Amino acid sequence: MHDPKPIRTELDRVVDFWLKYSHDKEHGGFFNCLGKDGKVYDELKYVWLQGRQVWMYSRLYRTVERFHRPEILDAAKSGAAFLQKFARVQASSGAGKCAFCLTRDGRAVKVQRTIFSECFYVMAMDELSRITQDKEMQADAESMMDRLIFWVQTDSSDLSRPQLPGDPPVNSMAVPMMLLCLVDQLTEGRTDVAEKYKDLSGWCVERILQHIQRDGKAILENVTLTGKELPGCQGRLQNPGHALEAGWFLLQYALKKEDVQLQKTAVDKFMEIPFHTGWDKQHGGLFYFLDVDGHCPTQLEWNMKLWWPHCEALIAYLMAYSHSRAPLLLDRFKLIYDYTFSHFSDEEHGEWFGYLSRQGEVVLDFKGGPFKGFFHVPRCLYMCEKLLDGLLERQDS
Amino acid sequence: MHDPKPIRTELDRVVDFWLKYSHDKEHGGFFNCLGKDGKVYDELKYVWLQGRQVWMYSRLYRTVERFHRPEILDAAKSGAAFLQKFARVQASSGAGKCAFCLTRDGRAVKVQRTIFSECFYVMAMDELSRITQDKEMQADAESMMDRLIFWVQTDSSDLSRPQLPGDPPVNSMAVPMMLLCLVDQLTEGRTDVAEKYKDLSGWCVERILQHIQRDGKAILENVTLTGKELPGCQGRLQNPGHALEAGWFLLQYALKKEDVQLQKTAVDKFMEIPFHTGWDKQHGGLFYFLDVDGHCPTQLEWNMKLWWPHCEALIAYLMAYSHSRAPLLLDRFKLIYDYTFSHFSDEEHGEWFGYLSRQGEVVLDFKGGPFKGFFHVPRCLYMCEKLLDGLLERQDS
Repeated sequence: MHDPKPIRTELDRVVDFWLKYSHDKEHGGFFNCLGKDGKVYDELKYVWLQGRQVWMYSRLYRTVERFHRPEILDAAKSGAAFLQKFARVQASSGAGKCAFCLTRDGRAVKVQRTIFSECFYVMAMDELSRITQDKEMQADAESMMDRLIFWVQTDSSDLSRPQLPGDPPVNSMAVPMMLLCLVDQLTEGRTDVAEKYKDLSGWCVERILQHIQRDGKAILENVTLTGKELPGCQGRLQNPGHALEAGWFLLQYALKKEDVQLQKTAVDKFMEIPFHTGWDKQHGGLFYFLDVDGHCPTQLEWNMKLWWPHCEALIAYLMAYSHSRAPLLLDRFKLIYDYTFSHFSDEEHGEWFGYLSRQGEVVLDFKGGPFKGFFHVPRCLYMCEKLLDGLLERQDS
Repeated sequence: MHDPKPIRTELDRVVDFWLKYSHDKEHGGFFNCLGKDGKVYDELKYVWLQGRQVWMYSRLYRTVERFHRPEILDAAKSGAAFLQKFARVQASSGAGKCAFCLTRDGRAVKVQRTIFSECFYVMAMDELSRITQDKEMQADAESMMDRLIFWVQTDSSDLSRPQLPGDPPVNSMAVPMMLLCLVDQLTEGRTDVAEKYKDLSGWCVERILQHIQRDGKAILENVTLTGKELPGCQGRLQNPGHALEAGWFLLQYALKKEDVQLQKTAVDKFMEIPFHTGWDKQHGGLFYFLDVDGHCPTQLEWNMKLWWPHCEALIAYLMAYSHSRAPLLLDRFKLIYDYTFSHFSDEEHGEWFGYLSRQGEVVLDFKGGPFKGFFHVPRCLYMCEKLLDGLLERQDS
């Protein structure tokens, strides 16, 4: 069995890194752009990352005894207050629309025409309100969630995306994945809320399964709303890390629902296929993007090894192994684990590098940036620790 | 002296490649996404690249005897007709706004909130109308130019960029560079038009010179509208290829104006500085992005070697040498030439690869993509051929 101790130690180091370097004591919220040694190299505050950090601190505080510390709760509260005060954009259209990026003192810098700032806002507020029992905050999360659902399922005009004749709506993997993750968040321990979002979770699962294409042999990142393949590069795009993340979201849902068929689909399709297509047999690690027909992707970073797909892979294979005990899944976990810990983790300053070349050299050496915050690494370590503890407990009993 | 023959041969091969593979005989216009062997891997048509291809074909037809061929003129006309028919977005706001990307049959897929689709539209129509003497097309170019100037200097609300309190307007190098290039295009041989845009070219030069920062020791990609340094990564960003391109735009303008001081600034600041900051002493080639304070840029592709900065460098150093005959500038040209021809040019299928790793390996192997078309490579070869011919002529006489 895999020893949980190195994972526990790594999680402690990662938490310490962000506690030490990321807190903005003057304006509240968190600095996101931290160099390899933790030094702030840009003061912009990214709303995705603010929300994720609030969520992660709160989740650790609520569910892991050694993180049940006032400084962690205080940090989560500071981040949530910053978001509630500044995240929403004051604009004539798009009530509730959140910015993507803020100045240090909370002025909007950029707004995306997507739903993800709002998604992480919901995660943050829901998780923190579970600790503080703040009913207003919980209501804030739920009303943002309802707005999100309205944008996705009914009318997206608040997002200000122009309707263009050559750009029909697309089922992009991120949207149903994210909503399924939010349903899991909001419904924990609440049967009434679970009942409210029952149809939505079914809708998310259906939309995720539409990404299984090519007679069940490929997971494609973008498909039509009726689950058909799209033309061109957009249609042929594969994102192995995203597929793996969808895999464990689906497996988690299917385990709760005791849906054996869906459990099998989650593993066979969303974990096996991305490994076979995504693992770099020459240099190790998971590619970022691939084209299902073997064309060269047009994303310049396609062959880089990013930290987060590896985080998602670790969770996916360990969760799947933990359930089925199939040795192949443990082998996958070990393979990814060895690559990840030997390449991403920074022994010198703590935390992980995020961006390696195909060959595995660090090419961007910061620990936090516009898309890398206190989220994928600690979530992975937290979940793996829990899964390994669970396996050990069952072994002992 | 450098022999122009290999450059001439290379230009012929590049022209042949696009003539052979990029023409859409069914719908008009050009396929942009061509694999290493010329095969179309995506049918989307990018408006920047359609405009640039029309311009390049027209310029070659008009000014180089061996390209004065009907098939080249016909191709330019087909591209221009496609643009005139489909590039403008039908929308309530933003009259004249052009799409960024179209389907094969001309339906808008994406619209950018910038001015560049329109800029390349102007270049295309102006250059082609000089051959065909089509007054309507020339007027089309000029009215689009006037709209552009209005967006940049008076009111940008047609571009639908939200006004956000943390995002004040920025002087980004691309805008004054592009407008200076357009003024050069529109005023060739036309004293009345030159008179009309006299103030504009002065404005462009002033805005470009604002990018000289740090006591004259750095060229920064983004500054404030009053020429001050911006905070954070955005403010510290250096793009050596862009600085070099600005350098030859400035030098060309200064030579026309017989402005000796500006000629010196163009070379000393916009050609010397980007070489010293941008040349990779370890592996050769010009970096794509750098941070002036030595932080790691947040662009994942920062350390890649792209074809176009090398194209711009070749033009810049040869133009500067051709004028001053300073041996150092010829050395620079030769260094870049050797790197470029040994790394980017594809002997097997023709045309150039566009994207290398820091170490100089091809990592994206297509010849045409969303940002790489029939433009930087042939423009570079065309200009270098002319400059070398000029040098030889003067040597002989």
